[in-house]
Amino acid sequence: MKLTILKNELNDAIGHVSKAISSRTTIPILTGIKIEATYQGLTLTASDTDISIQSFIPIDKDNETIIQVTKAGSIVLPAKFFIEIIKKLPSQNIEIEVNDSFQISIRSGSSDIQMVGMDPEEFPILPRIEENHVLSVPGDLLKTMVRQTGFAVSTNESTPVLTGILWKMAEGSLKLLATDRHRLATREAAIEADSDLNFNNIVISGKTLNELSKIIPDQNTLVDIVVADNQVLFKIDNVLFYSRILDGTYPDTSKIIPQVYKTELVLRTKAFTDAIDRAYLLSREEKTNIVKLITQDEKNVEISSSSSELGKFTEQLEVETMTGEELKISFNSKYMLDVLKVIDSEFIHIGFTGAMSPIIIKPNDHVNSLYLILPYRTTN
Amino acid sequence: MKLTILKNELNDAIGHVSKAISSRTTIPILTGIKIEATYQGLTLTASDTDISIQSFIPIDKDNETIIQVTKAGSIVLPAKFFIEIIKKLPSQNIEIEVNDSFQISIRSGSSDIQMVGMDPEEFPILPRIEENHVLSVPGDLLKTMVRQTGFAVSTNESTPVLTGILWKMAEGSLKLLATDRHRLATREAAIEADSDLNFNNIVISGKTLNELSKIIPDQNTLVDIVVADNQVLFKIDNVLFYSRILDGTYPDTSKIIPQVYKTELVLRTKAFTDAIDRAYLLSREEKTNIVKLITQDEKNVEISSSSSELGKFTEQLEVETMTGEELKISFNSKYMLDVLKVIDSEFIHIGFTGAMSPIIIKPNDHVNSLYLILPYRTTN
Repeated sequence: MKLTILKNELNDAIGHVSKAISSRTTIPILTGIKIEATYQGLTLTASDTDISIQSFIPIDKDNETIIQVTKAGSIVLPAKFFIEIIKKLPSQNIEIEVNDSFQISIRSGSSDIQMVGMDPEEFPILPRIEENHVLSVPGDLLKTMVRQTGFAVSTNESTPVLTGILWKMAEGSLKLLATDRHRLATREAAIEADSDLNFNNIVISGKTLNELSKIIPDQNTLVDIVVADNQVLFKIDNVLFYSRILDGTYPDTSKIIPQVYKTELVLRTKAFTDAIDRAYLLSREEKTNIVKLITQDEKNVEISSSSSELGKFTEQLEVETMTGEELKISFNSKYMLDVLKVIDSEFIHIGFTGAMSPIIIKPNDHVNSLYLILPYRTTN
Repeated sequence: MKLTILKNELNDAIGHVSKAISSRTTIPILTGIKIEATYQGLTLTASDTDISIQSFIPIDKDNETIIQVTKAGSIVLPAKFFIEIIKKLPSQNIEIEVNDSFQISIRSGSSDIQMVGMDPEEFPILPRIEENHVLSVPGDLLKTMVRQTGFAVSTNESTPVLTGILWKMAEGSLKLLATDRHRLATREAAIEADSDLNFNNIVISGKTLNELSKIIPDQNTLVDIVVADNQVLFKIDNVLFYSRILDGTYPDTSKIIPQVYKTELVLRTKAFTDAIDRAYLLSREEKTNIVKLITQDEKNVEISSSSSELGKFTEQLEVETMTGEELKISFNSKYMLDVLKVIDSEFIHIGFTGAMSPIIIKPNDHVNSLYLILPYRTTN
């Protein structure tokens, strides 16, 4: 293998695939990035077995030559050092040469690095995925959907399926759902796809989707999603992002969402967030994060919290509208803040079905998202 | 105690004194901030016994009323919660009321916080310092002097005096010096002070001076420094910063600085920094950070490093001027980078007195700072 390549382009590709490198892996070959040169371009691959990412750099782009390949070939390089040294090379032009015994030279300006790489034959081969079922989602929408649900996944590895986000596709609508048994978040959106494309029980790790979000550029990009038996492939420009589908059956949550409410509030999102945030400061001293909400009259609710160590907090908050019964309810303020942080609307609607029933929070201006928090059972 | 105060002013003062709160203290009263209201203003005090900081808020500033004191008094409040809740209060106006049993109410907008404070009598009394010896140093100069020496203090608590920076004042010149036995940094500056103000062996913790630097504003501020028997007081506007002087005799380092060189190099600071930074990447894999510098001819030096795991790095670097003998020397690249980071000049001068003698680095355009690194003894 012998080639020259522009530093910035190599850096960008390294930045993409580096998301799949785990520092905790015990398999030596997976601490490396595989680079493979053909006369069409350079392919970088990294994998931690859960995620695999491949980034392709074409030999030219917009009439600019990016790579000149003199000899095709491949090698696996230790990722940590490779990532950092490429960033710091003195010149925009980088020359890479590999001999038959995996000896590699990297030259740039008057810098010269001599390394020993690893055998590319040892690197895991990425799965072939048949592209029968493809859906296309705008990148910024996909990032929003992941952000608006991912916070609710479980961090408890004892039920692996709950550490993931459930993906459902039916009748041209994609729905993401996450729950850790104490709270639930869903987000839905109409998506361009074959009308016969339906799936259910596709669960992808929340952490993985968070890494995926970091790779999706902010500007308009369409992400093609290919769903296979045990893998999902996300295609973003020249990057292929493979994720394992989590094993297990996702619990049916449809029955826990109440359809009628006994008390309904419309609140200004910012004012409610700020009040809960203040109440949270005291509540977290007790680890439980308990905050109490009590309806006062048609115009006000009282938000309060207390800590045996520090004291107590009370605030009167004006509501936009209130309908239904009087209410006294306790909930985890941290869970409420997590929901409020991902709601971009000016007003929110909160529906209650009694002090022991799930609390439902929705943005007031559309029906695409729904958040649920279970209340605390308290003695008064 | 009863008063109203503007949130921003209270926040700023809390921000200053909070630097003296240690999260590791076992003395309950020191987890608090003491607030004391008089009809002149509000004084906040915090202390971790090594550092004590006092910030005074006058009742008015620039014809604006900041505080209205209805009743004088004092209280100690739990710092962590107090710092955060004040920041998050809904209104610019804050009302604070304390009764005789240390019950405190904080009200702002429709928020109401009820807390129990601690007895201010239990809070340590700050030392009275006689202001016989005062020197005034411009704030930005003081920050620079601390930055240019503080990195070289020892982190090994077994010789406490070396964790500090040595302050010397003689003939109108202030000199700061730090060493951890492997390297040394000094910075000198002419200072306005009484001509008879001389001191030596004043050693102040590097960490403490780092905290002090964070309090000094960026714009032109004069810091008055009062040196007493076992304390130094720094006065910055309305903030008093007390620091303990470290016990022990600082070692005499004057004899280890060579006065003549066998080899001298002038190098472009940025180019040398970048080359050492690249070499460092490989060298740190061996934990020793060894980088080798070899003079090539009158125009070039070779910088190299190696790692048994990864490989080796070599770079040719053009020098501005070179005089004296040929040289082959090894040193800790991390120590060299630490020096290069604090040198603001375009060119540096490096003096060598042989492969086993201290390396002296100076900015090429002034004589106010000097850095020393001991070389490594290597076999070839």
